[in-house]
Amino acid sequence: MNFKLIFRFLGFINLFMALALLLPLPFAFYYGDGGTQALMISSGINAIIGSILILFTKNTKRELRAKEGFLTVTLGWILFSAFGALPFVISGAIPSYTDAFFETMSGFSTTGATILTDIESLPHGILFWRSLTHWFGGMGIILLSIAILPFLGIGGMSLFKAEVPGPVADKVHPRVGETAKILWGVYVLITVVETILLMFGGMDLFDSLCHSFGTLATGGYSPKNTSIGYYNSAYIDYVITIFMIIAGTNFALHYGVLKGDIKGLINNAEFRFYIFLILGATAIIGTDVFLHNYNHNFWDAFRFSSFQVTSIVTTTGYGTADYEQWSMASQLIIFSLMYVGGMAGSTGGGIKVMRIFLLLKFAQTEVKRLIHPKAVISIKIGDTVVDRKVMMNILGFFLFVILISVSGSLILSAFPGVDMPTAFSAVASTLNNIGPGLNMVGPTDNYAFFHPAAKWMLSFFMLMGRLEIFTVIILLSPSFWKK
Amino acid sequence: MNFKLIFRFLGFINLFMALALLLPLPFAFYYGDGGTQALMISSGINAIIGSILILFTKNTKRELRAKEGFLTVTLGWILFSAFGALPFVISGAIPSYTDAFFETMSGFSTTGATILTDIESLPHGILFWRSLTHWFGGMGIILLSIAILPFLGIGGMSLFKAEVPGPVADKVHPRVGETAKILWGVYVLITVVETILLMFGGMDLFDSLCHSFGTLATGGYSPKNTSIGYYNSAYIDYVITIFMIIAGTNFALHYGVLKGDIKGLINNAEFRFYIFLILGATAIIGTDVFLHNYNHNFWDAFRFSSFQVTSIVTTTGYGTADYEQWSMASQLIIFSLMYVGGMAGSTGGGIKVMRIFLLLKFAQTEVKRLIHPKAVISIKIGDTVVDRKVMMNILGFFLFVILISVSGSLILSAFPGVDMPTAFSAVASTLNNIGPGLNMVGPTDNYAFFHPAAKWMLSFFMLMGRLEIFTVIILLSPSFWKK
Repeated sequence: MNFKLIFRFLGFINLFMALALLLPLPFAFYYGDGGTQALMISSGINAIIGSILILFTKNTKRELRAKEGFLTVTLGWILFSAFGALPFVISGAIPSYTDAFFETMSGFSTTGATILTDIESLPHGILFWRSLTHWFGGMGIILLSIAILPFLGIGGMSLFKAEVPGPVADKVHPRVGETAKILWGVYVLITVVETILLMFGGMDLFDSLCHSFGTLATGGYSPKNTSIGYYNSAYIDYVITIFMIIAGTNFALHYGVLKGDIKGLINNAEFRFYIFLILGATAIIGTDVFLHNYNHNFWDAFRFSSFQVTSIVTTTGYGTADYEQWSMASQLIIFSLMYVGGMAGSTGGGIKVMRIFLLLKFAQTEVKRLIHPKAVISIKIGDTVVDRKVMMNILGFFLFVILISVSGSLILSAFPGVDMPTAFSAVASTLNNIGPGLNMVGPTDNYAFFHPAAKWMLSFFMLMGRLEIFTVIILLSPSFWKK
Repeated sequence: MNFKLIFRFLGFINLFMALALLLPLPFAFYYGDGGTQALMISSGINAIIGSILILFTKNTKRELRAKEGFLTVTLGWILFSAFGALPFVISGAIPSYTDAFFETMSGFSTTGATILTDIESLPHGILFWRSLTHWFGGMGIILLSIAILPFLGIGGMSLFKAEVPGPVADKVHPRVGETAKILWGVYVLITVVETILLMFGGMDLFDSLCHSFGTLATGGYSPKNTSIGYYNSAYIDYVITIFMIIAGTNFALHYGVLKGDIKGLINNAEFRFYIFLILGATAIIGTDVFLHNYNHNFWDAFRFSSFQVTSIVTTTGYGTADYEQWSMASQLIIFSLMYVGGMAGSTGGGIKVMRIFLLLKFAQTEVKRLIHPKAVISIKIGDTVVDRKVMMNILGFFLFVILISVSGSLILSAFPGVDMPTAFSAVASTLNNIGPGLNMVGPTDNYAFFHPAAKWMLSFFMLMGRLEIFTVIILLSPSFWKK
């Protein structure tokens, strides 16, 4: 293991953070409600540590092997959160480091689960940094899913590399660095468009930027206590619904659309299934809300249910309605959707639509195999046969999701006062990088009450979920560390 | 599809039922509390229908193909329940046919979920029939898992056929009919031994027989309202705990032990994992109960927790304590154990220890594959490599379990008043053929309150679970019905 090289990478992350921490300063100065000093001190600490790491790791090989890749990605994300938490603690906005780490991991992992009980009491500069962690987290994910995870062999992700026809990542542009830059450009462009559209709806620049960051990263942090519900505007709700759908779509497809290839988007099997899921769940929950919540007319029911379904499927976690007022069946649909997630190649978390699609196909295929024991039946997306190794990895991924969900819920329920819906949904919500859950972590609640040990565990679940589970699990395997 | 032959088989089932329905008569006469007439009428109806079916299906080919096998097994189990429900309705013990069907399916599927609110008010003859449905269901399962399912190719089950070393089903005796007879002999013998041991503990013959039927079949019906808790006897608790463990063990291994091959049992990988699970869960829950339920001393905590863990893992469902008084973590462990089930080749339901074992190995293997992408890694039990097709089928089985659990809970929660723990645990408990669940279907409650539609759905889940899911799912596939 070339630790020197790994530390060198981490040093660059610190330097990046040092610059990123300066971005909220204009807002801190403009609003003048504090946080300026904390941001500058945090930036300085990052600059010093980054410089030291880089100076002391000169003269090393520049080639990163797969094993070092897993370790670097995991350590990198932890470092982002560990140092990104500084301004919260230094400014006094979040006095406990455990809470600050949870909040920052929730940011960089684009989860959006918060321990804050009064968000609006924080200085604007700090709130802007909080939303920025989402935005940079989303950028990290695009790089990860396009360039790094396929190279490391994480199943489903590698589908972008070769197996799937159409506007595939490495066909956007052959060189990984170039691809990342192109997709980041798309990401920035869409962020700008959403910000402008939100400002048309009456949001100020600060709120528009923060909410666009939260949307594009499928994060969910809002500078408002009542999230998007604060504005009570159908226009804003629909703008954000549409941009959540965009953020949950493979960014390579967006690049294709920008270059005129709309067919590539519309004919994509994963995209069709993704839209089908959102429309289907909206139809069921919308009908339920319309029939049983008598204060909603038809259009309100459609508006709130489409927003909520999109927010959960894309793993954003924004809220406009308290879905715990809805029927138990609607709540269980929302709970189930937590595991779906966005498309692979999007900033969305969760299992990913592609994997769900292939898991369903696999189950169907096993039935066919029993009926025709001698037939050779392969699993296809469009016209392309899915490689057996990829399918096996997806099945392994699903097993780990179930295993972590069950054992995590068990451990969480051992903390006093945590009931079954809270335990199950808190784990589902963090592991799939969503934010809100049910009962004690419902859309009107937060994660503040958890025991510090539970907060660290949930932070770990956010990290695992964000890094497609295997990237982290692999580090816990003894055979990873053998020469 | 040779329907003539299928109907002929069903006719024999009716004739079998006609005889079986006469078995409770001695108890009905002895206790003289009714049910005699109902049993005799039901027997007569079965005899007539069976005779008609057999007379009208003479002169057909006697060879049953795989497809017809799936259909016969499923229809057979439905027929057992449909006609086995008659004495309940005719005697007036269970006036609603829906309820009677649920109760009988719960019996033949060895589930043990009841709609009865006052069990002890039923005539003894009817209660004996209720427990007999378990015992015959258990016999059916042994035949199914040893002889029929491997032949139909249901994954995991076919492991007995060839892949697993040691005392394997078809090595007990080469001919299927002989094997079934031998294992039924073992089943009867163990039932007799338990009955005698229970009588030593002060139970009368009637109760001893009923409880032995419920144990050996891993069913769980008790003629007492408070189940085994009624006797409040450590001796009886431990006898039943041990016989539940025996019932959850592969019966081929018992035959081996009876022939002197104790090593075959002790060295069996599945058996070791099964015992490890029971001991591990008992240690955790026992400690929890000891520490937090202050009315229990150490031995009581061990007694109640070992009984409860065994009752759930083996999918029996007997109760001696109200585990809803235990901590949330203990309840969630119990909920998770619902999915484990007994060993393959036992009368236990659930996913089966063998499949859980292989699923965990598979997950581990996928991690290893990422670390060593070029290595060829196979999954083994002992020294034997598990066939890829078998592993795929087990993964498909697991997917269906999750799919049915989630969608079933969703549908169940759409009925008014059903909360999340009730919905999840009612589905888990019926699909895995256990009996009790959590909240409204907890160990002190019953399934009476469910809407008739929910009762039919849960009956269907009991059927699916008992027939290893694929046997039933396959009939729902359009390609099954194509020529």
